[in-house]
Amino acid sequence: MNSRLTSLFAIDFPIIQAGMIWCSGWRLASAVSNAGGLGLLGAGSMSPEVLEIQIRKCKAATDKPFGVNVPLLYPRVEEQFETIIREGVKIVFTSAGNPALWTSRLKEHGITVVHVIANVKSALKCEQSGVDAIVAEGFEAGGHNGKEETTTFTLLPLIRLAVKLPLIAAGGIATGRGLLAALALGAEGVQIGSRFVASDESSAHPLFKQKIVETGDGGTFLALKKLVPVRLIKNAFFDQLQQLENSCATPEEMSGLLGKGRARLGMFEGNMEEGELEIGQAASLINRIKPAGEIVREIMDEFNLARKELRDSEY
Amino acid sequence: MNSRLTSLFAIDFPIIQAGMIWCSGWRLASAVSNAGGLGLLGAGSMSPEVLEIQIRKCKAATDKPFGVNVPLLYPRVEEQFETIIREGVKIVFTSAGNPALWTSRLKEHGITVVHVIANVKSALKCEQSGVDAIVAEGFEAGGHNGKEETTTFTLLPLIRLAVKLPLIAAGGIATGRGLLAALALGAEGVQIGSRFVASDESSAHPLFKQKIVETGDGGTFLALKKLVPVRLIKNAFFDQLQQLENSCATPEEMSGLLGKGRARLGMFEGNMEEGELEIGQAASLINRIKPAGEIVREIMDEFNLARKELRDSEY
Repeated sequence: MNSRLTSLFAIDFPIIQAGMIWCSGWRLASAVSNAGGLGLLGAGSMSPEVLEIQIRKCKAATDKPFGVNVPLLYPRVEEQFETIIREGVKIVFTSAGNPALWTSRLKEHGITVVHVIANVKSALKCEQSGVDAIVAEGFEAGGHNGKEETTTFTLLPLIRLAVKLPLIAAGGIATGRGLLAALALGAEGVQIGSRFVASDESSAHPLFKQKIVETGDGGTFLALKKLVPVRLIKNAFFDQLQQLENSCATPEEMSGLLGKGRARLGMFEGNMEEGELEIGQAASLINRIKPAGEIVREIMDEFNLARKELRDSEY
Repeated sequence: MNSRLTSLFAIDFPIIQAGMIWCSGWRLASAVSNAGGLGLLGAGSMSPEVLEIQIRKCKAATDKPFGVNVPLLYPRVEEQFETIIREGVKIVFTSAGNPALWTSRLKEHGITVVHVIANVKSALKCEQSGVDAIVAEGFEAGGHNGKEETTTFTLLPLIRLAVKLPLIAAGGIATGRGLLAALALGAEGVQIGSRFVASDESSAHPLFKQKIVETGDGGTFLALKKLVPVRLIKNAFFDQLQQLENSCATPEEMSGLLGKGRARLGMFEGNMEEGELEIGQAASLINRIKPAGEIVREIMDEFNLARKELRDSEY
């Protein structure tokens, strides 16, 4: 497969593994890159010191390109970018913040910069900031989420019309048919999170991986809609959040319950009831935990089969 | 184009115009059917007497198949079905209720029955009830909406796996690329609402049609999430609903504000601030009011072009 996106990253397949907190360390990122996709380290749950170790291990585990996802709201973001530049990482995905802040500085160091957006206004800002590609993330995505609640199906054609940048679809995609649909709507590749959390190489707790497999339709929900929208698996912690929201709690009360350690407690330490379990609606499409490389190959096989079906059908 | 869906309805193209309150009378339904799609009368805003007149006018305006959408929660639903049977309508779409209630009686009269669902459980119930096809409607759809908030991108493959019935995609679809993506995800056709509201033949008020053209991304939102979720254009009425919801109003208070006449006031009488304006996220993709037949042809042209692109690309 050959497109401007695969050329930009020098990868074989237009499949990007999302850089997710607590789930995507060097084992997962290198496995996806070795399989021909683009693996990303999720720096949002790493100190700059841990990030350095992870980058070095990833470089040792693959000769292929890989990248780092950095949420711009992270408190030690300055040090993280210093680590990334020092270690010679060539691809950075930024999210949760203003792309104008870091793009030009990263590009001075020869780094390819991709920014995650959820509306047209942010996409235009990416173009002005000199970003190399954008990820358009729909309402169905796991974790933090746009306030407009625009879904992947509507967001992709809107962004395609608004900007000329290479466009990566995220949210709701877990299969080869999903990749095909994303391309039909104007994307040039996909970023996949949930499905890679449920891989052998992900650093998610085994109980969290199992929980994803068991999650059916309606099993996730967007919590904190008025504060900082985040899609979670419904559990005891989620119920507490909903109760607070339904009783019109103040933002301070909500933040108090959230705390800092909830995501680690759930996704990394395996507390399925008291932890925060960030995952997308695509969890309902995931039935087995597999090696990440097998997931990449399966998606491409299904994509090719579905494309052939569509081509040969009487439509 | 030939598929089991086009065969089921005896139509040329797998495009169904949604039967929407206040917007889809005989002019719109007959225009879509005459263009090779399937037009539906929206009985949810019609008395049985008005429905009878509408059916007769539609029969006079087209020799092609057309249908009626009946929300099962409608108070005079019994009389509506009597009218439909008496007038010899051959296709009925039911929504907002239990498909087991009416399907077998309608089928005894040789009527093809389609039911609208938003989750796997309801899809299985449709299969058990002997429904002929289902519409899977995602979170991005206008008007009333499932409580699970599952989007079209996730819902379609889930329903495709769960049941073997012919599957129609709804929610977020307004273009030929949308049709292509829906087929990629396992649907066999699409139901399109918003785009046909903004057609010459729709009975929506001209100010409402114009409002749709002006609506950008983030311009609609799902209101009444805890009561009866409904996607609306943001206006003064929507703000009032949100304020009540944010202040933890009781369901009774919410219902009081809603009242009965709000949808008519907005969509039919053209009060853009005090009326209820039901429309989907796809409104953001609509830039012009056009004849319904031209919309059908444009969608098919874009579909064929996009399919060719996908086939000829190096992917």
